[in-house]
Amino acid sequence: MTPDLQTELRAVADELADAARRIILPYFRTPLQADNKDPAAFDPVTVADREAEQAMRAILATRRPDDAILGEEFGTKPGTSGLTWVLDPIDGTRAFISGAASWGVLIGVDDGTGPRLGIIDQPFLGERFTGAFGQATLTDRTGTRPIRTRSTDLKSATLFSTFPEVGTQAERAAFKAVASRVRLTRFGLDCYAYALLAMGQIDLVIEAGLNPYDVQGPIAVVQNAGGVVTDWQGGAAHNGGRILAAGSPALHEQALEILRAY
Amino acid sequence: MTPDLQTELRAVADELADAARRIILPYFRTPLQADNKDPAAFDPVTVADREAEQAMRAILATRRPDDAILGEEFGTKPGTSGLTWVLDPIDGTRAFISGAASWGVLIGVDDGTGPRLGIIDQPFLGERFTGAFGQATLTDRTGTRPIRTRSTDLKSATLFSTFPEVGTQAERAAFKAVASRVRLTRFGLDCYAYALLAMGQIDLVIEAGLNPYDVQGPIAVVQNAGGVVTDWQGGAAHNGGRILAAGSPALHEQALEILRAY
Repeated sequence: MTPDLQTELRAVADELADAARRIILPYFRTPLQADNKDPAAFDPVTVADREAEQAMRAILATRRPDDAILGEEFGTKPGTSGLTWVLDPIDGTRAFISGAASWGVLIGVDDGTGPRLGIIDQPFLGERFTGAFGQATLTDRTGTRPIRTRSTDLKSATLFSTFPEVGTQAERAAFKAVASRVRLTRFGLDCYAYALLAMGQIDLVIEAGLNPYDVQGPIAVVQNAGGVVTDWQGGAAHNGGRILAAGSPALHEQALEILRAY
Repeated sequence: MTPDLQTELRAVADELADAARRIILPYFRTPLQADNKDPAAFDPVTVADREAEQAMRAILATRRPDDAILGEEFGTKPGTSGLTWVLDPIDGTRAFISGAASWGVLIGVDDGTGPRLGIIDQPFLGERFTGAFGQATLTDRTGTRPIRTRSTDLKSATLFSTFPEVGTQAERAAFKAVASRVRLTRFGLDCYAYALLAMGQIDLVIEAGLNPYDVQGPIAVVQNAGGVVTDWQGGAAHNGGRILAAGSPALHEQALEILRAY
């Protein structure tokens, strides 16, 4: 990927995140109709999700018309360039409708081998985590600075997952096997857990049942900050499913060894 | 309580919260030694907790020398006025050391019958929730505005608790009985869940095993915003233990009926 293309992709990704932020933030903590996408559970989607994804798609139609798009709310648009924009306008809609600031706008650029660029944007905190081409940064109201994961061993580690159920019963058992070995386990942060991991505040994120748009942005942020993200067998994670994200290769190996046994 | 005393207590409470914010915020997201207060689990305390409580006690020694103090880190100081300041410098130290913004500074003023004034302060978000003498407000970077709980029935309600284990196995069963009847259950927010309840963003907070300093500030915020807070038998909650906080009397009654059966 040429430096010029890298610069262009970064600029377009920021434009998308800016547009989503501008649309979503006025809806935050206002009375909002949450439509349920899953009759068997509660998987809410709001007008904020839909409008933000439409705005991002409109920008891509002008700026990157040959790229493919995979978005949570409006599906797949084919492309010819070999690049796919992977969009989740609000990851953590349950947190969003609860007024908690752990939701985020997720943007990834996949070249077919995985995300080369990723953004986790938290509009209410005014924080944008970007990972791309070997660099990871946090941009907030005070400016832009590099971020970096930390190294910890398993018994001192802090582990996050969004739902205590994690996934199936077997997946829950595997998660608990890791949780029983770490110092601290916490729940409920959605994509913001990957941001804390990339900042070196926590050490492990383990999730199951994810979609590509849930992980592509976070994978690029964590990897470019020095972390390791795979599935529970050590394979590529960018298509979703079971995710193990760790702050360092050594910690990743320790957690993977436990998960692999399940 | 005279209007002059009410005004004075409000001013002193704001001074305490300002001092705690000034001390704690520079420690947030910096490498910090977390000492463990509970050898059987992980109950961290940091220099930020200790320094903030000391600063609040120093202000009270000057401004309200006859009042009693009950603080999480430095225990009880007796008083003669009939008022007790109930202080938790960082509620949610586990979130604090993880870099998540759900921790808060909790301040309550108890006249012996329960908290008449309470503050939940979130320094990183710059948000202060105050409930006192029939009024509840949120002060943030944009100013001060009234806040109010909302009314929902049980099947449409959003329920929060900090830990999925909730408490003992019996307490967990009671919690799950309520959780099985609501629309959405989330975990991990510490005292910030009470702030969301007071703002009308969520509907129920259920916790067990709490201390007086975990609840006195939140009780005053929620009650003055229109909510109801009791223990699981409908009795006073300001001494801690099992807490049921609801956005409206009707919803409180629905949840209480389930919890009482356990």
